[in-house]
Amino acid sequence: MTLDDLPTPCLVLDLGILKRNLAHMQAAVARHPGVVLRPHMKTAKSLDVAALAAPGHGPITVSTVAEARYFAGGGYRDQIYAVGITPRKLDAIAALNAQGARVKVITDDPEAASAIAAHPGPQAALIEVDCGEGRGGVTPHSDVLLEIAARLGKRCLGIMTHAGHSYAGRSQAEMERIAEAEHTGALRAAERLRAAGVNVRIVSVGSSPTALYANSMQGITDVRAGVYMFGDLFQAQIGTHGLDDIAVTVLGAVTSRKPERNAILIDAGSIALSKDRSTQAVPKDYGFGLMLDRAGRRAYGDAIVTRTHQEHGEVRGENPLPFDQLPIGALVRVAPNHTCLTVAAHDRYHVVDGGERVIAVWDRVNGW
Amino acid sequence: MTLDDLPTPCLVLDLGILKRNLAHMQAAVARHPGVVLRPHMKTAKSLDVAALAAPGHGPITVSTVAEARYFAGGGYRDQIYAVGITPRKLDAIAALNAQGARVKVITDDPEAASAIAAHPGPQAALIEVDCGEGRGGVTPHSDVLLEIAARLGKRCLGIMTHAGHSYAGRSQAEMERIAEAEHTGALRAAERLRAAGVNVRIVSVGSSPTALYANSMQGITDVRAGVYMFGDLFQAQIGTHGLDDIAVTVLGAVTSRKPERNAILIDAGSIALSKDRSTQAVPKDYGFGLMLDRAGRRAYGDAIVTRTHQEHGEVRGENPLPFDQLPIGALVRVAPNHTCLTVAAHDRYHVVDGGERVIAVWDRVNGW
Repeated sequence: MTLDDLPTPCLVLDLGILKRNLAHMQAAVARHPGVVLRPHMKTAKSLDVAALAAPGHGPITVSTVAEARYFAGGGYRDQIYAVGITPRKLDAIAALNAQGARVKVITDDPEAASAIAAHPGPQAALIEVDCGEGRGGVTPHSDVLLEIAARLGKRCLGIMTHAGHSYAGRSQAEMERIAEAEHTGALRAAERLRAAGVNVRIVSVGSSPTALYANSMQGITDVRAGVYMFGDLFQAQIGTHGLDDIAVTVLGAVTSRKPERNAILIDAGSIALSKDRSTQAVPKDYGFGLMLDRAGRRAYGDAIVTRTHQEHGEVRGENPLPFDQLPIGALVRVAPNHTCLTVAAHDRYHVVDGGERVIAVWDRVNGW
Repeated sequence: MTLDDLPTPCLVLDLGILKRNLAHMQAAVARHPGVVLRPHMKTAKSLDVAALAAPGHGPITVSTVAEARYFAGGGYRDQIYAVGITPRKLDAIAALNAQGARVKVITDDPEAASAIAAHPGPQAALIEVDCGEGRGGVTPHSDVLLEIAARLGKRCLGIMTHAGHSYAGRSQAEMERIAEAEHTGALRAAERLRAAGVNVRIVSVGSSPTALYANSMQGITDVRAGVYMFGDLFQAQIGTHGLDDIAVTVLGAVTSRKPERNAILIDAGSIALSKDRSTQAVPKDYGFGLMLDRAGRRAYGDAIVTRTHQEHGEVRGENPLPFDQLPIGALVRVAPNHTCLTVAAHDRYHVVDGGERVIAVWDRVNGW
């Protein structure tokens, strides 16, 4: 099977780039002795990717109950489900744990902590700490941190924090600074809990930029990161990888040609690419994606998906597009703005290794 | 089963509102004797919805090969596949037609027309005409219109056009004007083809606004529209329906509470809601959606999803949020910005009829 046999639009995953990205992060985390990389599978959502990213059924992170179930079924027992738990979801998690999984839930709320403590099934929890992102979590110095721990009782295994604000960093120096704040906040929360008598076994931090650039992880037990596996146009611009390190592209086909406005339409639109506009916030705005040639090379310069409809993407060239090379049906590949959202519309990866031969098809677990 | 039994996030579809929306459009099209409503199933992608929207296995429109296959399997033979065809997809369409379907493809390209004409399987095609949208299609007065017809030969059944620019209309008067341009363009193209000896049997127009507000459809055979079935916050503001006519909402649960910034986090984020920002272009910007109470009522005023991450939605209130009514796990519903994209992340509808009891679960066909 080659790219010509695939129904467009669909995902193409380059195995060589994926392996290079995984090795890069593994090396970054290996700088910190005793710290474990706990890959966040929310991006890839694939057992085949997990086999490379968390070899030997290592610890992972998940973002949905569906992922927890899928990866537990595939032998990944040690999981952090890193989205605030609701009481209604405890039965499903306890059922996985009763079968041998060790899925740890998170919360930043005292009432939810009481619900976790009261649940009859096997449960363990981490307290979500806010180290500056301003999304979920309690601050390291807050009273409520201790209250949640008290309510969780023996079910409290430690803390986790997510330096999501690192994506607003625009230089390695800024990311190093945010990583330091993440580190300090996590340690401060852990120390206060220990002083209160809590047996803190997990001190978990994470985000791809801080995982790459942290100068110290003293006292940290594990690091969560996900988008580093595939990369995207946004990540390339904030400097966590290069433009050649994007492992996933959307394969599409030309459906219409409009030389009068130097544009083509392709069959990858709002669903296949997603409506994410992350690169609006960085120097180079790639619209809804950057069009590459069928081999994944940047053959058309800045050919950008400037407009999408549900099943239409309109690509405009900054240079004149070579219409003779782009007849109806011609294959192109689109590098994504934000890979986590682009891949979410698709149910499988078509794996290549530098060429056009499809060497494997890997499935994904979508939904909740 | 009630809303309390559903895994969040998920879709809730209100049957009463759906039926009202369908009746509204059916009445609008019935003003034009002889014109058939050919519902576009790209939004709902559901056989159960089609049973109501196109009763008696009536003519429909689809946007993907997967939809064509799914609806043909469900008995909907008369389809227009309304996205520019690529030669690689002709085998799949011909296979459906060989089994009794009558799926008509579209093109705006002479070379694609030749490929359609040369394909051995049963095929029929419409020429895509641009009546002012500036996306796909050839202009009604162009020479290439006649060239495509000549290349298609007997496989040419007529023309189709899509007044997608009607969504830029902000008043009924503007939409009436765009509908008139759509009508005039379609007739002009059909007349020129007939003058050239083409047996034009289908003259198809469509978009929800122009279908609702067209003053004349003389000479038109069918009208395609889709988003009218479910409605959304964008449609409500351009005036094609009211804010109470949104049939689909996303059921979510509170995962975190942040009174200090008058915000809650819910478990419906970038995937469950989509990143579409359509309402950025209309007077009231609803961010990534408007939070309603679990019964679908606007109980919190302008409580808007202002920020999303993959599995997190942050809702901020313009008025103080009633945190005592919003504990962790409390159910809420989010009205979508752009319903076609929000529902695309989900694989089923949980159907209610005004209450909280789930009376049916309807599936969807996603992917390509």
